[in-house]
Order: sequence, then structure tokens, then C-alpha cells
Amino acid sequence: MQYRRLGRAGLRVSTLSLGSWVTYHNQVDVKSAAEMMAAAFDAGVNFFDNAEAYAGGHSEEIMGAALKQLGWPRLNYVVSSKYFWGLDRQGDAVNRKDTLNRKYLMQAVDGSLRRFGLEHIDLIYCHRPDPHTPVEETVRAMNDLIVQGKALYWGTSEWSAADIRAAWDVADRHGWHKPVVEQPQYHLFHRRRVEQEYARLYDDIGLGLTTWSPLASGLLTGKYRGGVPEGSRGAMETMAFLRDGLTDTAKNAAVAQLDPIAAELGGTLAQLALAWVASNPRVSSVITGASKVSQLQDNLGALALLEKLTPEVKARIDAITAPLAA
Amino acid sequence: MQYRRLGRAGLRVSTLSLGSWVTYHNQVDVKSAAEMMAAAFDAGVNFFDNAEAYAGGHSEEIMGAALKQLGWPRLNYVVSSKYFWGLDRQGDAVNRKDTLNRKYLMQAVDGSLRRFGLEHIDLIYCHRPDPHTPVEETVRAMNDLIVQGKALYWGTSEWSAADIRAAWDVADRHGWHKPVVEQPQYHLFHRRRVEQEYARLYDDIGLGLTTWSPLASGLLTGKYRGGVPEGSRGAMETMAFLRDGLTDTAKNAAVAQLDPIAAELGGTLAQLALAWVASNPRVSSVITGASKVSQLQDNLGALALLEKLTPEVKARIDAITAPLAA
Amino acid sequence: MQYRRLGRAGLRVSTLSLGSWVTYHNQVDVKSAAEMMAAAFDAGVNFFDNAEAYAGGHSEEIMGAALKQLGWPRLNYVVSSKYFWGLDRQGDAVNRKDTLNRKYLMQAVDGSLRRFGLEHIDLIYCHRPDPHTPVEETVRAMNDLIVQGKALYWGTSEWSAADIRAAWDVADRHGWHKPVVEQPQYHLFHRRRVEQEYARLYDDIGLGLTTWSPLASGLLTGKYRGGVPEGSRGAMETMAFLRDGLTDTAKNAAVAQLDPIAAELGGTLAQLALAWVASNPRVSSVITGASKVSQLQDNLGALALLEKLTPEVKARIDAITAPLAA
Amino acid sequence: MQYRRLGRAGLRVSTLSLGSWVTYHNQVDVKSAAEMMAAAFDAGVNFFDNAEAYAGGHSEEIMGAALKQLGWPRLNYVVSSKYFWGLDRQGDAVNRKDTLNRKYLMQAVDGSLRRFGLEHIDLIYCHRPDPHTPVEETVRAMNDLIVQGKALYWGTSEWSAADIRAAWDVADRHGWHKPVVEQPQYHLFHRRRVEQEYARLYDDIGLGLTTWSPLASGLLTGKYRGGVPEGSRGAMETMAFLRDGLTDTAKNAAVAQLDPIAAELGGTLAQLALAWVASNPRVSSVITGASKVSQLQDNLGALALLEKLTPEVKARIDAITAPLAA
Repeated sequence: MQYRRLGRAGLRVSTLSLGSWVTYHNQVDVKSAAEMMAAAFDAGVNFFDNAEAYAGGHSEEIMGAALKQLGWPRLNYVVSSKYFWGLDRQGDAVNRKDTLNRKYLMQAVDGSLRRFGLEHIDLIYCHRPDPHTPVEETVRAMNDLIVQGKALYWGTSEWSAADIRAAWDVADRHGWHKPVVEQPQYHLFHRRRVEQEYARLYDDIGLGLTTWSPLASGLLTGKYRGGVPEGSRGAMETMAFLRDGLTDTAKNAAVAQLDPIAAELGGTLAQLALAWVASNPRVSSVITGASKVSQLQDNLGALALLEKLTPEVKARIDAITAPLAA
Repeated sequence: MQYRRLGRAGLRVSTLSLGSWVTYHNQVDVKSAAEMMAAAFDAGVNFFDNAEAYAGGHSEEIMGAALKQLGWPRLNYVVSSKYFWGLDRQGDAVNRKDTLNRKYLMQAVDGSLRRFGLEHIDLIYCHRPDPHTPVEETVRAMNDLIVQGKALYWGTSEWSAADIRAAWDVADRHGWHKPVVEQPQYHLFHRRRVEQEYARLYDDIGLGLTTWSPLASGLLTGKYRGGVPEGSRGAMETMAFLRDGLTDTAKNAAVAQLDPIAAELGGTLAQLALAWVASNPRVSSVITGASKVSQLQDNLGALALLEKLTPEVKARIDAITAPLAA
Repeated sequence: MQYRRLGRAGLRVSTLSLGSWVTYHNQVDVKSAAEMMAAAFDAGVNFFDNAEAYAGGHSEEIMGAALKQLGWPRLNYVVSSKYFWGLDRQGDAVNRKDTLNRKYLMQAVDGSLRRFGLEHIDLIYCHRPDPHTPVEETVRAMNDLIVQGKALYWGTSEWSAADIRAAWDVADRHGWHKPVVEQPQYHLFHRRRVEQEYARLYDDIGLGLTTWSPLASGLLTGKYRGGVPEGSRGAMETMAFLRDGLTDTAKNAAVAQLDPIAAELGGTLAQLALAWVASNPRVSSVITGASKVSQLQDNLGALALLEKLTPEVKARIDAITAPLAA
Repeated sequence: MQYRRLGRAGLRVSTLSLGSWVTYHNQVDVKSAAEMMAAAFDAGVNFFDNAEAYAGGHSEEIMGAALKQLGWPRLNYVVSSKYFWGLDRQGDAVNRKDTLNRKYLMQAVDGSLRRFGLEHIDLIYCHRPDPHTPVEETVRAMNDLIVQGKALYWGTSEWSAADIRAAWDVADRHGWHKPVVEQPQYHLFHRRRVEQEYARLYDDIGLGLTTWSPLASGLLTGKYRGGVPEGSRGAMETMAFLRDGLTDTAKNAAVAQLDPIAAELGGTLAQLALAWVASNPRVSSVITGASKVSQLQDNLGALALLEKLTPEVKARIDAITAPLAA
């Protein structure tokens, strides 16, 4: 396994990491989670991503139970969580959803700690930007959570470059803990934010990246080339919002063209897509998902491909996918 | 229910909220308090106002007991309290009454937390200004209470614009938590402070307002038009200081003139008066009082009137009341 | 009883307060201490002065036990302690005596809290200056003790004006808690520091004063006019260092001349001396000592004289004592 | 015993102190450790040096158990520990070895406190520089550990002058706790860093020094003049890396030339070497090692020699050793 620093911060995370979006609770129980995490850990994965909103809090509970069962030394792994949507999204609970105000953040992190059964979370994220709370209020709350020892580092997810810089500036001006990482969507068909919008932030403020959806919700595995297969994520009721993107004709055609390249390098389409994300040196960790150990092992195979992604190979991949990328 | 941000802060409070001045303890027990709070909460009220001095601490105890009984998630409601007069006002207890010094504030908030049975109070107020304590000492104590996690936001009540700005400035200069809200008296006959004195503070420092006495101690309900009715608040021994104001002839005449306007909009005098306060967009929340559920329901009816308060209607109300307003 | 602010701070202390130097432990047990404190409290005294070094820690233990027995509300009284000499003064314990370094201060205050049985001390003093510790280290430790909630205010005792200003400046520059009070020796024969050296500090930094030795170790009671009486403090083995000062011929002659003035005002010499200290408006509190209740009552009688200290009377006192004062 | 301030800090440490490198655990048990520490303490030693990495954590456990057994008042002794390598140095534990990132430091100090059984460590060191963590992250973590009360002072070990200054500057700029001490190797054959590289830091930032390896791993005792004796540290398997240095011909010849000087002053070679380090007034404490009480007593004899190290004697020593010194 490779390890990279989280941008300019001293924390090191494995180049491939394990996220729990969707998979936990709905499809995975504690036993399976522990098995998958153990397999990942044995392969050198040290970063496990989570969020308050995943499976309404159950994803944190399951990961917490699995961690307890696994009994690893606390220094050996990094756990993250994210805050914005709240545990549930109903009714008039105006201070517990879609907000980054002080009340929500302080109480939401306490809730996470309880669900995880941990004394601190290594990395906490603002899961989305909140235009209705002053950035100073949000930054100060994140800082105070670190000062209180409930978290060690903080970052953002899907924030604009301007918002990230505003947060960093207000923290820097007051001597508060600054955001060290952003978690954007990043894959062969979604590149503009990471490659253009954030371009100046890497050197200016030392921003690190953990990225989500490396396989474009499965599109880059090639399994949607023939429509939505039964039992796939795209077929799930709650994932209807993804379906159009997954069956896009042009993109599936491009995926088909990547197939021989993956084969040539001795890997699968998924491995090629993962390796491509990891080949961006600004990316600290590629968050991968898996619902069974075999799938996880497949993903880890991407590391072998990473070394084979020469500039020439990347140029061929670019020629096929860049015109379709957002 | 509508929700508004507390000035520029990210916290959201219901446009109508429930205060406990006088009513609790003297006229209301835990069971009634819980019933009234439940009715308010069901109607979308999320902000419950209190103060250390209300009923000598019993108001906080009763609200705390009611909250425990109601069992709402902590994120769903906002509780405030206020500090200045102390629990009792006797003798030479020079550091426990009429002060905002560090000793009083630190210990008074601890007392409130105990009476409420809460781990934190969402919003703490300096109930009055204290010219005998440096504003820096008071601001730092409020900041430290937030840093210690005992409160989330702080504000002032009945402070001059100059004092609010001084507090905000000293906090801003040191990077301390700034005051986000002021709680002034505000109703049809008491407007100058909110509309003129504070005018620049809304944009300059993002001041929010929660307002008290929307019905001018009952005067605006019209019930004092024929003198002080038996059993009314104006008839209570301890409320003698209010009596002259309540029986003012000119004001009661004006109230009589408002009656047809209220009727025209399909509401009561009280609803009209409440809606008028809420129609000021600088007001985050109108704190209302009630000693029985039916009265609370009446008050909540003001929301319906709010939409009917066109500029033309407001001009008619102004013509009647503005000349008499302080 | 009169109450005065501690300089510019919001804390209010009684103009006469009760110190425990020497008297506790050596001459007084818990029962007597509680009786004396109760008598003082009933007369309006709200400030009780102490120090780690008094009677090797027993003075704090006795006061703590008395407070527990008396059961006053914590907001009603102000307790102070002071740190520099350590609990004992033996051997090579280089970090526990004659120092204001961080190690000593942090651990010494913890020891005081234990001995008092209190959760916080209202006012902590640096009992003497320490030229071997950077003022920044000392100021930061005092600040941190307040931030941790172990103390509410801090000050100095017998520091030079230059050192007090240096401490205030470093605190002000960093936004740390500033010293609010100095405790100097101050009586008819010891005036220069309070009246000249500190002169600019009162307005510049709002310095308050609590003063010790108002009776010049008993000299101003007149009891040493005929030599050292048996059983007096001057006769005690451990007080030998005071004997020469107490038997100074010129000063005892001056004391004799004050006698008729005291009589004229209807008081005793001791009351005159106490009232004279209290008549300086820069003095927040005159710390008095007593080993029995009757002596305390005598001292409290000084308040009556205070009103009679007209400029004319003060001029007569000055004419007699000022030439002999340091 | 002499005591010196830790640079400009107010903490005082004995000129000779006791370190536990190697000796504890491998060669020493709790009983022996307690005996040795008692002998040192009786001779006035008040500073006991340790590190997380010594004997994989056992060195802290043994010292903690010995301290518990000895029962000294906490104010009477100073304990230090150091952090960088982690408890073990295996595998991919990227955040628990060779790092000074926030995650490692916060958790490592917690581990030390547990092993020592102490509530705070007096002095914590960054055991080596970490070029892969921003100095701001490391400095802030050290500051936060002090603010949390887990440590009282912090310093560095084997950092470059430039890195020490960078750390001091970032702390000073933010008002954080600054590093007060550096722990370099310093002996007759290793002088450049202390005497040249750090030269400006003593006055500029008040840097103190605690020094390690005063006897050059035994070379300066003269015992390696005839090769590596059986049972010596140089003969130990794990100390192979030291062997070449210990048998250096030119240095052993120089040591032989020092012999008559030591004899002339009435001491041993080891005492001469220790006294020479202590004779540098920039050195706050010379950390000595010992595996038995007799050896410790020998070391303490160096204090007597210290007074005899006249400029003339030091010039003779210089003439012999300086040409060979790094």
C-alpha cells in the first residue's frame, strides 16, 4: 500500500481507503463490515470514511461495532465522519438538517462519537456548504471541536474553491485550526472541480483531497453497458436519481473503449478507473466502496495498475473520456 | 410556522416563540407547562425563552422538568436564559444581583444548568447592562461560557446601541464569541429603540432580535379598555407597577380603533399586535406568553394575519398608534 | 458595610475584609474561625483573604472547614489565596518555593483547592515578584488557571509598579486575563508605594488595591507604647523580626499624639488607623486580622469613623505621621 | 547540587540529572530503578529524563512504578518524555512512527501518562524533527497538550537551529506555548551544534539545553582504550552501531591524555567529562545514565570537579580533544 499526506498536514492516509456509503446497514451487517475492514486493513488500508447521514446513523454504529471487535490500536487507523444533512431529513427540524450552524455541529459530533463508541474522530468534514450560516461560525465550531479533543483535523466536502479559501482565511486570521482537506467527487467523467477550480488551493493553502465515487456509481465498471442489471445499485429504489447517468449511451461507449486498455495493463475496468484517480498526485486517498470482500480485493488490485499508468497510457484514456467529462 | 435566522447567526428560531415570564410557577405547574410547550412545539415553535430571575429560579426548574417529560431530541429545540438580577434581590449580596461581573456570570449559568437539568443552554443573555463592570470583563465571561460548552450563542437584553457595539467590538478584536442577538421590548407603543437606535447595527454587526412584551402587558388585547378586570395580570399585587400604563386613556382609545382592522383581517386584537411585531423583518422571534393552551393557540393565529399585513394596512395601524409610541 | 469594586473589575468587596495571616492555626481553630467569619459576614464582610503559606497550609484548611460549616451560598463570599513561598521553605525544593514558574503555580493552586474544598478560588495572587521567571510565563499560568475555571480573577502582592505594568502589558497584548489588583502593605507609616509608585496605574490599567497590615503589626493600636506586652504578637518567638519596628520610639510617640484625635471622633486608635486606610478611594478593601470576635467587632467600628475623617482631620493626622512614613 | 533554570523558563533542574536510556528494562527492574532514583534524589537530582521509545514503553512504566513507590511530592521532581519514533517501529503504522503529526502526538502523550501513572508530564520533547509535518501543526499540538494540562513545558531534541527558530516563531506569532529547551548530544567529541549552530538562540529566544551522551557512549570513561570489554554496552548486540566510534584510535589516545588531568583534579575520566559539559553555562542539565548506584555516585562526583575546571585547565583539555571533535 502507498501512503500519502493529507495535503500539507502531517496525517498519512492509504492511497486507497474504504468508505461506507450506502453499503453499510442496507446491505452489510457488523460481521461483514468487520470482515471487509479486516481485509482492507491487512492490505494496508488505514483510512475508513463515514458520515452521520449514511444509513441514518447506522453506518457509524456498524463501523464502531466492527472497530471494537477488531481491536486495532487507535493510532493505527483513521476514521472520518461528515456533517450537514442531519440524521434524518424530516419536518421542521430547522437546526438539525442542511446546516452548519454551531448548535448542529456541536451536537452532531457528540452523536457521532456516541454511535462510533470512540473518544475522538480523526477527521471531520462539513459535508456540504451552508450559505445560511456565516463561514466564521462554522469554522469556529470546527476549531472548537478540535480544541475540545473531539476531532483532530477538519475539512470540507463539495465546497467551492471560494468557500474553502474563505474558511481557511478566517481560521488563519484568528489562529484557529484550518481546514486541511476537501472531499470532492472525482472520476474520469467528473474532473473540472479538482483539476481547475481548486488548482490554486493546493499550493496556496496546502489543500489535500480525499475523493468519492471513483467508479462514477458503477458506470466505470462497465456493468451498465447493457442497461441496468438486476440487483445492481442502479436498480435500487432509493438510487433512482442515479439511473439516467448510469445508462448514458456516450459514456458507456467510452467505457467500452477503455476495456482493451485495462486488459492490456492486466487489470479490470474498475481497477483502471481507480488507478487513474490515484495517479493524480493531489489526491491523498481514493475512497472506494465494496459490499463484499472479493469486490474490495478487486479494488485493491488497482495499486498494481497505478505503476503502469504512464503518460502515454493516460493520454489514450484522456482522448476517450475527457470530451465527456464535467 | 416560519423560521428565521438569529440575525446573521446560523441558528434558526420560530417566528413566534414561547416565553415563561411570570406565568410559570406563579400561575402554572409542570404539567401545564409541558402541555403548553407540547402544543407550541406541535405548532412548530422551537424556541423557549427563560431567565434566572423569573419566579426566583422556579421558571427554569419547571421548564427543565417539562422538557425532561417531553423527551424531545436536544437538537429540535432552543432554550435561552438571562442573567443580571440574580435569583433573589435581597440584602448585601453585591456579587449576585444587578451585575454582569465574572463571578456572578460563571456561577449563575452553572445554577441555570442545574435547574434546567441541561448540559448546555443554547442562548444566554445579559439581561440588562451593568455600568459597573467593564464591558471587556462581561464579554470575556460570555465567551468563556461558550468555550466551556455551557452555552452556544450569547446576546444582550435592553442594552443601548452603543453598549452592544462596544461588546461586539471588544469580542471581534480578541477573536472571542460575539453577541448575536438583542432582546428589546417591542410593540405598537414602544418602537424607537428597535427602529431608530439599533438601525445601523443590523447591517454593521448582523444583530438579530428576539422581542418581548408584544402585547404591551395586555394593553393591546383591549382588555383594559374598561379598567382593570379582576383576575388579570394588571390586578395582581406584584404587577402594580404596570397598572398606570395599562389604563392609559389615549392608548386604550387607540386600541379600540384597531379593533375593526383586526376584525377585517379575520383576527383578534392580540393577533394583530403580534403579527405587526413579526412583520418587522429585523425581528427573528416574537416571544409570546400564555397561561393556558387556548391562549397560546390564539397567539399562534397571528401567523395567519402576518400575510395580510400589507403596506396599506400597516399604514392605517401606524396612523392610529405611532403618535402614542415611545 | 460599604462595598467597592476591585479597581476597574466588576467584583465587589467589602471595604473591611478578614485576613487569616498568622491567626489561624496557631491561635485559632475551626470553631473559632467559623465564629469570627460568621460575625464578620453578619456585619457585611464578604471578602476573606488567605495564602498557601499561612500556617503551612492549615490556614486554608481551617477556612475551608469553616466555610463548609457555615454553608453560605458560593456567590455571597469572595475567597482569595496567594502563591510564591510554597507550603514549606526547606531544602532544595527549587520548584516549590520562592518561585512563580508554571510548574509551581499550576500545582500550588490545585493544592489550595483541595485544602479549601472549593471548586474555584475567586482571586489568586502572586504573593511576591519572582525575578527568575519570565513575567510572560507567570502571566500565562495565571491566565490558564482562570481559563480552566480554577480562579476568577488574579493579582499581585508587593510587586513594583514596573512589574505590574509589564504583567498587564503582556496579558493585554495576547488577550489573556489581566491582573486586576495589587495587595501592598499600606498604613500610616507605610505610604510611598500606594501613593506615589502606583499613582499612574490606577487610571492607566484600572488597578485595584487590597491592603495588608493596616495597624502596622499592632504598632498603631498603641499597645507597644510601653514596650512589648506579654502575649502580644511582638512577643512571639516567630515574630522577632517585627520587634524593632514595633518599639520604635518616634513612631510610638506619634501614636500617642493620635490618641486624642481618635477619642475626639469617638473611636479607638485602631479604628482611626483602619478608617484612615479606607479613606483612600484607591483602596478596595482593608484586610484586617483578628484572633477573637471582640477584636473583630472593634475593627468593624472603623466604618463609623470613616465618615468623620474630614480633610481637616486627615491634615492633622498627616502632620503627626507623614514625616515618619516610608 | 546546583540548580539551573531551563534557559529563560522559570523551571529549575539539577545540573546533573538521571536519564533512563537503555538501562531501564533491559538491565534494570523497578526495585533497582527506585534505588537509583532515591540515591540521585537524595543527592539533589530533581530531573528524570525518559522517552516513549526507550525499551518500547517499559522505561516509562518502570519509572512510573518507581515514582509511585518513592512517593515524593509531585512538586519536588521533574519528569520528561520524548516523542517521535513511536512505541514500536514495525510495518505500515504510518501515523505512529517517525512523525510529529497531531494524531500521533495527542495519542502518544496519553499513552505516556498511562504508563507513568502521572496526571501530567513536566516536560515533553519532540524527539527528532519531522520534515513531513508542518512545523505549525507540531507546535500547535505541543501547545494544546500544555493547555489541556497534560504537560507544563515543551522542547525539541536534535533539531536544527533553523527548525527551533521556526517553531518558536510560529508559537510566538500565535501566542502559543513556545519551546523552551533543546536536548542535543554534547560531549568533548561532539560540540559544533551546541557551540556554533545554536549560538544565537540562547539570547534570541532564551533556549535552554539538557544534553545527552556526556560520556560519548562510554568512550570518555576510557574503558574502550583496550578494545571492547566483555559485558560493556559496546559489546551488546543491539549496540553494534556504536562500536566503530567507541574503538576509534585517535579518540582513545586523546582519552588517555586526559587521564593525568583527571587525576590531577582528584577525579576520574568520567567525572572530568561530565564536569566539562556542565561547565558550559548554556547547559541547564547534563543527563547521565547509570545501571547501578555506585556508578551514579561516581557520576555525581563530577560536581566537585566542576569548581576546579579553571580556564587554564579547560584550555589544556581543549588542546587535546578539540581537533577530534565534531
